[in-house]
Amino acid sequence: MSGIKVVTIGGGSSYTPELVEGFIKRYNELPIKELWLVDIPEGKEKLETVGALAKRMVKKAGVPMEVKLSYDRKEALPGADFVTTQIRVGLLEARAKDEKIPLNYDVIGQETNGPGGLFKGLRTIPVILDICKDIETLCPNAWLINFSNPAGMVTEAVLRYSNITKTVGLCNVPIGMRMSVAEMLEVEPDRVHIDFAGLNHMVFGLRVYLDGEEVTGQVLDKLTSGESMTMKNIVDLGWEPEFIQALQILPCPYHRYYYQTDKMLAQEKKEANEAGSRAEVVQQLEKELFELYSDPELAIKPPQLEERGGAYYSDAACSLIDSIYNNRGDIQPVNTRNNGAIAGIPAESAVEVNCVITKDGPKPIHVGELPVPVQGLVQQIKSFERTAAEAAVTGDYNTALLALAINPLVPSDTVAKQILDEMLEAHKAYLPQFFQTVV
Amino acid sequence: MSGIKVVTIGGGSSYTPELVEGFIKRYNELPIKELWLVDIPEGKEKLETVGALAKRMVKKAGVPMEVKLSYDRKEALPGADFVTTQIRVGLLEARAKDEKIPLNYDVIGQETNGPGGLFKGLRTIPVILDICKDIETLCPNAWLINFSNPAGMVTEAVLRYSNITKTVGLCNVPIGMRMSVAEMLEVEPDRVHIDFAGLNHMVFGLRVYLDGEEVTGQVLDKLTSGESMTMKNIVDLGWEPEFIQALQILPCPYHRYYYQTDKMLAQEKKEANEAGSRAEVVQQLEKELFELYSDPELAIKPPQLEERGGAYYSDAACSLIDSIYNNRGDIQPVNTRNNGAIAGIPAESAVEVNCVITKDGPKPIHVGELPVPVQGLVQQIKSFERTAAEAAVTGDYNTALLALAINPLVPSDTVAKQILDEMLEAHKAYLPQFFQTVV
Amino acid sequence: MSGIKVVTIGGGSSYTPELVEGFIKRYNELPIKELWLVDIPEGKEKLETVGALAKRMVKKAGVPMEVKLSYDRKEALPGADFVTTQIRVGLLEARAKDEKIPLNYDVIGQETNGPGGLFKGLRTIPVILDICKDIETLCPNAWLINFSNPAGMVTEAVLRYSNITKTVGLCNVPIGMRMSVAEMLEVEPDRVHIDFAGLNHMVFGLRVYLDGEEVTGQVLDKLTSGESMTMKNIVDLGWEPEFIQALQILPCPYHRYYYQTDKMLAQEKKEANEAGSRAEVVQQLEKELFELYSDPELAIKPPQLEERGGAYYSDAACSLIDSIYNNRGDIQPVNTRNNGAIAGIPAESAVEVNCVITKDGPKPIHVGELPVPVQGLVQQIKSFERTAAEAAVTGDYNTALLALAINPLVPSDTVAKQILDEMLEAHKAYLPQFFQTVV
Amino acid sequence: MSGIKVVTIGGGSSYTPELVEGFIKRYNELPIKELWLVDIPEGKEKLETVGALAKRMVKKAGVPMEVKLSYDRKEALPGADFVTTQIRVGLLEARAKDEKIPLNYDVIGQETNGPGGLFKGLRTIPVILDICKDIETLCPNAWLINFSNPAGMVTEAVLRYSNITKTVGLCNVPIGMRMSVAEMLEVEPDRVHIDFAGLNHMVFGLRVYLDGEEVTGQVLDKLTSGESMTMKNIVDLGWEPEFIQALQILPCPYHRYYYQTDKMLAQEKKEANEAGSRAEVVQQLEKELFELYSDPELAIKPPQLEERGGAYYSDAACSLIDSIYNNRGDIQPVNTRNNGAIAGIPAESAVEVNCVITKDGPKPIHVGELPVPVQGLVQQIKSFERTAAEAAVTGDYNTALLALAINPLVPSDTVAKQILDEMLEAHKAYLPQFFQTVV
Repeated sequence: MSGIKVVTIGGGSSYTPELVEGFIKRYNELPIKELWLVDIPEGKEKLETVGALAKRMVKKAGVPMEVKLSYDRKEALPGADFVTTQIRVGLLEARAKDEKIPLNYDVIGQETNGPGGLFKGLRTIPVILDICKDIETLCPNAWLINFSNPAGMVTEAVLRYSNITKTVGLCNVPIGMRMSVAEMLEVEPDRVHIDFAGLNHMVFGLRVYLDGEEVTGQVLDKLTSGESMTMKNIVDLGWEPEFIQALQILPCPYHRYYYQTDKMLAQEKKEANEAGSRAEVVQQLEKELFELYSDPELAIKPPQLEERGGAYYSDAACSLIDSIYNNRGDIQPVNTRNNGAIAGIPAESAVEVNCVITKDGPKPIHVGELPVPVQGLVQQIKSFERTAAEAAVTGDYNTALLALAINPLVPSDTVAKQILDEMLEAHKAYLPQFFQTVV
Repeated sequence: MSGIKVVTIGGGSSYTPELVEGFIKRYNELPIKELWLVDIPEGKEKLETVGALAKRMVKKAGVPMEVKLSYDRKEALPGADFVTTQIRVGLLEARAKDEKIPLNYDVIGQETNGPGGLFKGLRTIPVILDICKDIETLCPNAWLINFSNPAGMVTEAVLRYSNITKTVGLCNVPIGMRMSVAEMLEVEPDRVHIDFAGLNHMVFGLRVYLDGEEVTGQVLDKLTSGESMTMKNIVDLGWEPEFIQALQILPCPYHRYYYQTDKMLAQEKKEANEAGSRAEVVQQLEKELFELYSDPELAIKPPQLEERGGAYYSDAACSLIDSIYNNRGDIQPVNTRNNGAIAGIPAESAVEVNCVITKDGPKPIHVGELPVPVQGLVQQIKSFERTAAEAAVTGDYNTALLALAINPLVPSDTVAKQILDEMLEAHKAYLPQFFQTVV
Repeated sequence: MSGIKVVTIGGGSSYTPELVEGFIKRYNELPIKELWLVDIPEGKEKLETVGALAKRMVKKAGVPMEVKLSYDRKEALPGADFVTTQIRVGLLEARAKDEKIPLNYDVIGQETNGPGGLFKGLRTIPVILDICKDIETLCPNAWLINFSNPAGMVTEAVLRYSNITKTVGLCNVPIGMRMSVAEMLEVEPDRVHIDFAGLNHMVFGLRVYLDGEEVTGQVLDKLTSGESMTMKNIVDLGWEPEFIQALQILPCPYHRYYYQTDKMLAQEKKEANEAGSRAEVVQQLEKELFELYSDPELAIKPPQLEERGGAYYSDAACSLIDSIYNNRGDIQPVNTRNNGAIAGIPAESAVEVNCVITKDGPKPIHVGELPVPVQGLVQQIKSFERTAAEAAVTGDYNTALLALAINPLVPSDTVAKQILDEMLEAHKAYLPQFFQTVV
Repeated sequence: MSGIKVVTIGGGSSYTPELVEGFIKRYNELPIKELWLVDIPEGKEKLETVGALAKRMVKKAGVPMEVKLSYDRKEALPGADFVTTQIRVGLLEARAKDEKIPLNYDVIGQETNGPGGLFKGLRTIPVILDICKDIETLCPNAWLINFSNPAGMVTEAVLRYSNITKTVGLCNVPIGMRMSVAEMLEVEPDRVHIDFAGLNHMVFGLRVYLDGEEVTGQVLDKLTSGESMTMKNIVDLGWEPEFIQALQILPCPYHRYYYQTDKMLAQEKKEANEAGSRAEVVQQLEKELFELYSDPELAIKPPQLEERGGAYYSDAACSLIDSIYNNRGDIQPVNTRNNGAIAGIPAESAVEVNCVITKDGPKPIHVGELPVPVQGLVQQIKSFERTAAEAAVTGDYNTALLALAINPLVPSDTVAKQILDEMLEAHKAYLPQFFQTVV
């Protein structure tokens, strides 16, 4: 390749400046010649704002990277080396419904592995599969780097229902866990290594190392002694120390939804009453960010973006693209085809696991059996993801109901049906597969 | 063998007359020379009542089977061909606590795969493992037929923590499902065949046949059209038709606890307020049964026993013993070592699955992958069973907490801890492994 | 079904009278209304002879089974309930080459799992796959019962390269082993049960039972003390007693090719010089049989057929069809989809294993891991079968070479190439897939 | 660790100077404070010669590494961080018998995966297991790095029959393949990466990369066009181009024994007649090396050592120790516990596979299914290794016979018995487990 071409679908996202910053920083080793930011016509205002900022950033940095805007991905894709997707079908408004409607039934929405995640998946997967078809035709050698949520379900769908094999799903949870552990241990993050394994937003740190020496016990001690680790967007409700000691592995922040369901539900209801749901908080934040981005004097990523909750996302993406392009052989946790790395999960399913990243893609480091106590929960989310992906593709009402009813956050088939009916109606515009009239 | 010797541990159980009836009916093909009913000294009154009835039944039937009573299993075991266990450590009083204490925390007790089941397991497993040691020494060729609940967890423990390999766990749920399906179809039960697979009280009918023709769809239709199937001891709250249609397999009655958690909880709380818990209902029923048994005129199994909820249990046991003894090669659903029959469950774990029953024991009919939507729940109960069995053997507080916290009926680690602490205290007398003082 | 329709492709085979006898014997329970014998026009003389005998047999027996002859399977298939195939593409002449050409290179031909088997497979598989396509169209509910050799490779090909799922491969080796064991033990065959597992012509008796009691050790003792078991068509060269004692399981007669390669080769070369190859012996035998069949007085299966080496084949077929039709639930060793029953073999590959035979087809009894010492050989034949099946379908020279070179009877890639080149030429007429001209 | 302690058992080996050179080169990053060379008293002369050379090398290099000699490993082991073993029980004389005796029966000896390897294993495994016991007691935190052959069988035995888990088996075949590929491509070796997977001396290069781009096809083309790759100690007999094209993966030099058995046998017989067996050639070479080593002026590794056939062995060892000590996270092919990395091989068995090397040991990069055509051969060698390891531990004659009879190089159970009997007698002094008298 003489200069790399990257196409970012959903380029109008508020995350984009971080991505641009990451590409600028790495320019010497990762010479991106063209960066295409693609969005839908409805997102024109945002894309123009973000695009203008990106151009100012590139100019200020003095790197010969061309930033191009487009509202037609078919125009952008030909010749792409990497395609990243960061789409949000239905925008934050839809996400607000994903979270709020279940709450009406005393059920946590949870926009990835919960009921909200089902609907996010139903809206997102058909769009991603369409993108896959375009990639297949227009840039068959490109790598598809997805960081649209629910990333696990989306990767599952790409692996099972498209012809794209060069695909990786990305998440910022593992890198966030590593940062938090480093903070707890008061060391630089690059001295910390974690053996990650599980599914997206259902990933565990099986062992934690500092400079290669195992420190899992020490980290778990700190975790339950108040020096807790959490993501910016999930409140910390503490863990029972004996539970974590018995678990012997590091949970991710999202595990609270399953191991502290009652407390999380209470918290979410409280917040919904006070400040609005997480989606509403984010909506407000987004508004402020775009105001900043519009400032023609701004030519760097504004520090406020780090408040957004998606911290490290774009950095993870740049790092992954760099390692593929430069065949670095370093280890990164990504969503990829299991192929047997985690025992008990089908070979063709997506898992989130440490991989050696090469020009030939991610090669999972073998995990084997997950610890006994967490096998069940991981399998349950995998059952959910697979059933949900099937529902997204078929548009079958019963399959969607089944996905919802088997979700561990949903208390019964009847509540599942109530939520399903209300949600289908609410998202009708974005779920054509469920409403096609056969004439 | 010239005449078979059967030892029934927990012989004072109210179920025993059914077992005796079963042996009498089969005498020609299954010539039991000695039937030892063994119980603990505290159960003397019951054992004598049941024993006397058993003797009257044998006499009336005119079969040369000798019924012997004993309060010392070491006296009874030598030379045994079959040992059956139907013990209830702590009696129905303990079961009442298993069910009631969790309800105080808005959690279903569920005496097999729920929090109640954990405590039943913690009390029962050490006793069963002691029995295993005695069998190893005193009658190493005997088959251990366990129908003490929680039968799945107990079989898991015997397979992993004893040297006994000739063991089978029995449950009346599959036979009950077959009876219910026969009733729905208005045919004789022996024309119905069901492909059973799963775990104890977590078993599914993967396919249903009538005279060898598959009728699964027809049965599922009836199931959701009001002609529902349920066990006597679990109220029928109905299923959402679309859910069952999507599931495409026949759930067992206990699945309501997981797929209708909210409704079952409401129901259990209501009943607890009204008539007392299921345990209390059963206590009353037991009392009435023993009054009947005391009647010196009674020399048959009284029909009221069928109300008890354990219908078909003893019949299943007799049938199993008969098929082993006579090398029948017929198919029965039992709890046995998986050995790979169900994909994704460890080889050495217990599963409930259709087996060909031979003199050499049960040979599982291969299942392969369970349907995607149920894999997760089955794995979760297996994680629970394995962690619970470990806690029962080690007496480790943290492991018990972990078992409880990962149970799908428990909403958080904190509630798990609260229930655990109250339950450990309540069952203290029966859980020495958790209260040993190291001097 | 009101009267069953069976279509036998390759109906002119000398085995057919045994099949007809089997159907007549079972008529009451297996009421076959129409038996179609189908063959290719080149086999007209044989089919007419066999067909006439079949009609005389049916008439003498007084059963209302109609025997119909056809040279066009498309005429015969519509409405069929069972389709059996017993074809021999290239006839015994081709088989003679399968055996003789490898011998020129000091390599055993072995018409199933050896180099001869590769060529038999290359000739047979495309024809069988064509039959599958016709079944799919003309009688989609029919069961395909294949007893054309190499039955393992053919079943593998049907499972992987056709849409037919209702298929079973049949072999007379297991039933022959059972008969031989019965003879050794001087008991009736139906008192003997063997746990069969492996591949076609590579099947082991893992355990042997007499009246349900394990007698494996006793049988192995007899096997190595001169009272040996063998098939009529494989000479008995004896086993080293210590080898069999260490193996601890019952080999099948074909195992001699792998565990006594040098002796078998010497023997085959000697026989080839003396009486001609096995194929030539069989050719002579066939000639004599057809002379017998032509006798218009003959109205039963002539006893001489039992000399033919295919003893029990047709009986196994009738028995299988009977058990499927009548949903018997008895146990028979057949070639079927592994689906995980034997660990380490892909789920979608064919294995030969004891199955419960039901209206819904064979359900494998779970095996788990094969004994360590035989795992390797079994896997090697499976690698061979899969590569050979691929070569048969693709007609790719290199793939065929690879299949031959990895066969355990072939000493090098160079000898493989020599044999391949000579064999391709010799069988040119029957291997169009290797000789298609692309214009 | 403040300065590393390495103990090399079999320190008198002619390979030792290479090891010492490797440690000297890496001193800055791998500060070895003490290097103990341990040997048996019978090897005193060699150990003193090698030890003196090692001391001169260290002195010349000016590094503060102390070289100590010992004839008692119990004196050397306490406090060791790494224990390497390079023992040869029975010396080259025994190896000569391993190779020659089978040749008398027209069977290739093959000192690792062939009949010779069985005997090498029978002699070596008990000694290694004794060393394991000493490590367990005297330096339980040490890593055991084994490069005694047969390294696969030895690693299998350590994993299954000792309590040592920190163990790695090393082989120079993969590094040799990489060097040869680099030579073919005329590039520096560190630009070549190969995905290795299989067993020791049965390892395949699944994919070959140059600077991260796959070049497998190109390498296979060169391999069959005369620019062949081979080890110094295995003659190159060429490959059939179509065979390698069909295989699509890179074989290792030892594969010739299995894919070109006849040619290799002829070659070995020829060489045995001319120059003596490979063992005899090596004996002569060793003699010359020790003459060189005795030269008091020599203070570097003499270049002639590279002729010895063990090229890269010690370099691989130093590199592995360095990566463990420094937690490098680089990729090296080693023999380690499979744990599921290669599908179809038991979790607890040894495999040779690319691993990420960390302070916590090697973490296999997941492989999944091996290509279909090679699965069988790999499984066959694994069956052989497991059965051989069992024979080494139990000293059971029948098990040893079984191991030999299932080896793909052995043509029959009878020849197996003949070789076994002659070999047991020839190696009697080193096989006490087979000759213990029970009084």
